[in-house]
This record gives sequence, structure tokens and C-alpha cells, in this order.
Amino acid sequence: MEKKLNILLFSGDYDKALAALIIADGAAEMGVKVTLFCAFWGLMLLRDPDKLSLEDKTIYEKIFGMTTPKGPEELPLSKMDMKGMGKKMLTMMMKDAESPSLKDFLEEARKKGIKFYGCQLSVEVMGFKKEEMIPELEIVDVKEYLKDALDSNMQLFV
Amino acid sequence: MEKKLNILLFSGDYDKALAALIIADGAAEMGVKVTLFCAFWGLMLLRDPDKLSLEDKTIYEKIFGMTTPKGPEELPLSKMDMKGMGKKMLTMMMKDAESPSLKDFLEEARKKGIKFYGCQLSVEVMGFKKEEMIPELEIVDVKEYLKDALDSNMQLFV
Amino acid sequence: MEKKLNILLFSGDYDKALAALIIADGAAEMGVKVTLFCAFWGLMLLRDPDKLSLEDKTIYEKIFGMTTPKGPEELPLSKMDMKGMGKKMLTMMMKDAESPSLKDFLEEARKKGIKFYGCQLSVEVMGFKKEEMIPELEIVDVKEYLKDALDSNMQLFV
Repeated sequence: MEKKLNILLFSGDYDKALAALIIADGAAEMGVKVTLFCAFWGLMLLRDPDKLSLEDKTIYEKIFGMTTPKGPEELPLSKMDMKGMGKKMLTMMMKDAESPSLKDFLEEARKKGIKFYGCQLSVEVMGFKKEEMIPELEIVDVKEYLKDALDSNMQLFV
Repeated sequence: MEKKLNILLFSGDYDKALAALIIADGAAEMGVKVTLFCAFWGLMLLRDPDKLSLEDKTIYEKIFGMTTPKGPEELPLSKMDMKGMGKKMLTMMMKDAESPSLKDFLEEARKKGIKFYGCQLSVEVMGFKKEEMIPELEIVDVKEYLKDALDSNMQLFV
Repeated sequence: MEKKLNILLFSGDYDKALAALIIADGAAEMGVKVTLFCAFWGLMLLRDPDKLSLEDKTIYEKIFGMTTPKGPEELPLSKMDMKGMGKKMLTMMMKDAESPSLKDFLEEARKKGIKFYGCQLSVEVMGFKKEEMIPELEIVDVKEYLKDALDSNMQLFV
């Protein structure tokens, strides 16, 4: 019977998003059906830097949209970020070890048909628009997330 | 068969506690039996600001009790807190989006009969007293937590 | 039927590693088969301070190795660390409450036969060598982790 994995990505940190996507891609390769539910800061991963919009947004939503990371490349490290210096070092160490980048892992996840859910309440509160995100994103409420998660063999909160 | 969800709240951050309670309340509405096990910083959520006590406490316990958040309203954001300014902005954005506050979600969880467990070791180390917490809190050891979690369909560490 | 618990330790913080090991040890005492998979910062817990090496390492790997915690005693608190002062207070409060230290819980986990996995990609990127770690550590890839986790009754991401 096909196994199911549900990952809730709460964090907007480069290293945590990396962990979530490495697990998601690895599981998809093993034939596991994977859902990535992005909530709160986790939505930053799925922002498309070329599609940002300030239209019909409140002043707070504009400030929030402009001062938060816009897509995988801008996410900070959860530790030792040192205003980007630590992240620079880590991404170079990843290159040295021939590891794909976070952006690569995200592309891979899209290719592998991983299901991307976005938290409706987070989107509403933060003032994001669906068209500012990667096209695969489906915005759902907490009950839709729970239906998927409770039906999965494994659930993680990252 | 009735489904069971067990959430271990380790974090003492406003946004993470919000995520945990949104999931808990949503699951309870779906007829899922929910246990929220608060450990370490997660216990701050359940402190009742009107029932704090310094009696029979060591100097460290007094310092710890006074310098840590006392209930949902005092929890900081995990990111962009900016000494409370970021949190102020986010809670106003929540109001704009007609989202309940963390305090509301906590009240809702209490009404919905969600089971509140507190980690015995954390309570002992931090010097908290049961009467300083919400009345529903039951203090249990890790094995009691594990019995509940291993018997659940879904377990999250927040 | 024997129950299985899989904990992915991503965090390199003292309090989070403590939570993971308290749960792991408690579960092992209940006859549950426990796997602790350390990835990213979680690997710091398993470094042996007496076996550090700078041999065959790039300049980044050397910097990384020297500027990151070397074993359980050096892990910082995730909150209120205050350059070690907060951690000092918390560890003294743990002593007052007769709680074992993180180092004790780790020793206990080793004695109880908990399986220690290390993330291969993290080890490669961070430039760690197996011999710098506790001897029980087995370095595996994400699919090995997933096989173990998907076969478990309970999975946590700490």
C-alpha cells in the first residue's frame, strides 16, 4: 500500500526548509506520496521573487511583504547566519560537497509532483496573494491540512 | 474509529503556540481527540498572569518566574519580534484579517475539552506550581506523555 | 507488538536535545525501539570533544568545526542563553531538582541501545569525520532515515 508523508513547514529558515525538502524529495523518490503544507514563515519559501505585488495591500501587509524573505534564496540560516555571512559559507560548503541548493531541491520537489498546500489563515493575515507564489500552491484551511495529515503514515512539524 | 492527535508544545513563542492551537482546535472540531503536552518553554502559554506566586521558591526559580512570559499575551514572536514591535504589527494584521488571537484560541481549546498535560520535569526544574497554571492542566511524566502519543494517529513536536 | 519511535534531531540547542533524549530514554524504558537521527546542528550533540580533528579539512570545514559546539556540554540554550549565563542558571536549577544533565541522558541513551543515525549529507557538507563522533553513530542517507521513520509508530522533528 502506498505510504503517505505530510510535512508542515512552519519555519522560514534556509536550513530547516532544506531539511524538509531533502526529506520530501527522498520520500517521493521512494514512491511515497508527499504533501508539504506551508504555514506562517514557511510560506516565504514559495514566494516567487519575480511576482511580488503591493496592490490592494494595507500598509502593514506592504511592510511585511517587503521586509520578509522573497523565495528560497533569501531565507536566512536559523543559526550562525551572521547577517548572511554564515549562510554564504554554508552554501559554499554545500557546493564543495556537490550538494544541490535549496532552490534545486524545491525545483526537484515540483518536478516530483509533491503537493504544495498553503495555510489560508497565514495567507490572509500576512496579506499574500496566490499569484505571488509558485503556481502549484493550493491554499487550504487547517481542516484540509488535518485530513491529509491524519491520513498519512508520518507527519512532521518543521 | 475516533482519531487521536498529540501535540508536544516545546516552544514558548506566540506564533508557534498559535500554530499548535489552530491545529488543536481544528482537529477537535473534526471530532479528533486532542492532547496538548506542554514542556519547557511551552509551559509559559498556560501560566495564569493573575495567579503568579513567589512563595517557597529558590532565588533562581523567582528570577526565572519573573523574567519569563506569563501567559499567552506575553509570548514573543519567534522571528521579527523586534522587542514587541513586530508582534504588535502581526497581532494588528490578525485583527484586520478577523483572526482570533492566541488567547482566544486557548480559550476555545479549553472549551473544546482538549486535554492539557504539563511536563513534570520541566515544572520541577522551573519551579512552577500547578496553581499558577490554568486549572485544566494535569502534570504528568514523560511516560504518560509517551503512552498518549504512541496511542495517537498523529504526533507533532512544536 | 513492539512499538517504534523515530526522532530526527535537527536542533543543536541544549534544551531541545534534552527534550529529545528525555523522550528517547523514557520510550526505551517502556520497551519501545528508538532511533535518534541527527542532522544538521543536531550532529553537534554527538561530537566527542576529545576526538576533534582538523586533518584533511577545507578552510571552511576547519572554521565550522572550531566555531560550533563540540558535544553536549557546549550546546547553547535555544532561549535566554545570555552568552551562557542563562544556561548556567538552568543547569543549576536542574541540579536543584535532581535532574540528570544532558550528558547523563546521552550516556543513558547509549546504555539503553538507542540507535544513533547521522545524516550523511550533513556530515559531508559540514566536513565532520565519523571518528570525531561517538562510536555508536552510523552515518546513513535520507532514504535510510525514511525507511526507519515510515516503519515507526511515532516520528518527531526536534
